[in-house]
Amino acid sequence: MNFFDRLHDRIRTVDSVVSIGLDPDLDRIPDHLHEYDLPRWAFNRRIIDATHEHAAVFKPNAAFYEDPDGWAALEETVAYAHGKGVPVLLDAKRADIGNTTRQYARILETVDAITVNPYMGRDSLQPFLADEEAGVFVLCRTSNPGGEDLQDLELETGEPVYERVAALADLWNENDNVGLVVGATKPEELEDLREQVPDLPFLVPGIGAQGGDAEAAVEYGLADGVGLVNSSRGIIFAGEDRGEEFAKASERAAKRLKKRLNRYR
Amino acid sequence: MNFFDRLHDRIRTVDSVVSIGLDPDLDRIPDHLHEYDLPRWAFNRRIIDATHEHAAVFKPNAAFYEDPDGWAALEETVAYAHGKGVPVLLDAKRADIGNTTRQYARILETVDAITVNPYMGRDSLQPFLADEEAGVFVLCRTSNPGGEDLQDLELETGEPVYERVAALADLWNENDNVGLVVGATKPEELEDLREQVPDLPFLVPGIGAQGGDAEAAVEYGLADGVGLVNSSRGIIFAGEDRGEEFAKASERAAKRLKKRLNRYR
Repeated sequence: MNFFDRLHDRIRTVDSVVSIGLDPDLDRIPDHLHEYDLPRWAFNRRIIDATHEHAAVFKPNAAFYEDPDGWAALEETVAYAHGKGVPVLLDAKRADIGNTTRQYARILETVDAITVNPYMGRDSLQPFLADEEAGVFVLCRTSNPGGEDLQDLELETGEPVYERVAALADLWNENDNVGLVVGATKPEELEDLREQVPDLPFLVPGIGAQGGDAEAAVEYGLADGVGLVNSSRGIIFAGEDRGEEFAKASERAAKRLKKRLNRYR
Repeated sequence: MNFFDRLHDRIRTVDSVVSIGLDPDLDRIPDHLHEYDLPRWAFNRRIIDATHEHAAVFKPNAAFYEDPDGWAALEETVAYAHGKGVPVLLDAKRADIGNTTRQYARILETVDAITVNPYMGRDSLQPFLADEEAGVFVLCRTSNPGGEDLQDLELETGEPVYERVAALADLWNENDNVGLVVGATKPEELEDLREQVPDLPFLVPGIGAQGGDAEAAVEYGLADGVGLVNSSRGIIFAGEDRGEEFAKASERAAKRLKKRLNRYR
């Protein structure tokens, strides 16, 4: 079953488009969890227990798992999220060529969807795009300051690079499995992109305290009701100073974000 | 000591600009090595033993190590290469934002240099660029067919995107630690880029059977004699059908490539 169909079902089941980023920074997880063999897994398990009813997906970022114990923690986390019925989107921003990108794409045997980087072009993403069951979110317009260094450059056709990336991603969407990563910092960009590619669901990171951004993220991020708005630290570290009570604070934060976003759905 | 100074010394010591890609595809390493706990490490150790005298660097690609055993194999490999005096360049093509890219950059405590992807702009690479001891190779013009999808797009200024990336990388080179990844498939592109950024060493992948490409890779890839020309499968799987004798074939392949490249240095 196509990822976006599964995501559609999941969004309806939990009445939520919240993506919860599992970025278990070892310097920030509660002290008492460091007694476990795999502290990141111990942390994620408690976060998943506390928040899964509000999660459309869990989104671990690969950067936080790049060591032997990290990959073990990631594997446990993915299996546990699946046990709770929640799809997993690995935020890895991968791309490479030929044989190498096929290696990267093996992760789709484990996770449901992945983020990828378009700079190396179509063949660098082909093994991801070819997987009809997987979701592939192509970086398009990112919300960081450096996002403009390349993405905003004007092409001789008059369009910025990121709009061309959206057009390419639309071309690459032969299996109805492609989405875009679009930051929420500029609502007008979200709106323009939604017009340009009406069928591609967006993953919108960078939701801050501003209500306007959340509104734009929902209004323009969803395609036929399907899309994701991510919060990572705002949820998982909501109870950073609460010791063993940290997970309850995460639950409240996830629920609050869900409600805030649902106002605009 | 600056990475490119270390690389300069290494190139002089072994009289070689060969980068040996350590991509230990589990489907291709010799059968008898699968008996070891960490077959990829067993394979790499033998390749390093056989080829290190011809290696300016070893270049493991992160895609081949993305599981718990893989990361353990990678750690052993890096330590062993260092024991032989060879710098290690991790081909990871990383980039992310803020807290996340700082996590990725922790790998520079272990390896000497890394490849990064420019699509997310300067701040997505900042923790790499800020490490004065590390080498940072920015993807510029890649040799795969899809390289043209974005990299060749013409900007309103008349230059292609990849030339702007080269200009940006030159700006980002405040610590004399930036290089470019430039494929060897179009010698005229190598030549133009060398003129544009005379001080940035190139990492040139994609050396095939064609002598012309090797000549261009050396002639334009080096800056003040410093640069790298990579071969992965052409060296490490040169003895794929030789069973336990595989490493000797790799040694010959590495030596042959070194000699071929040295003709043009």
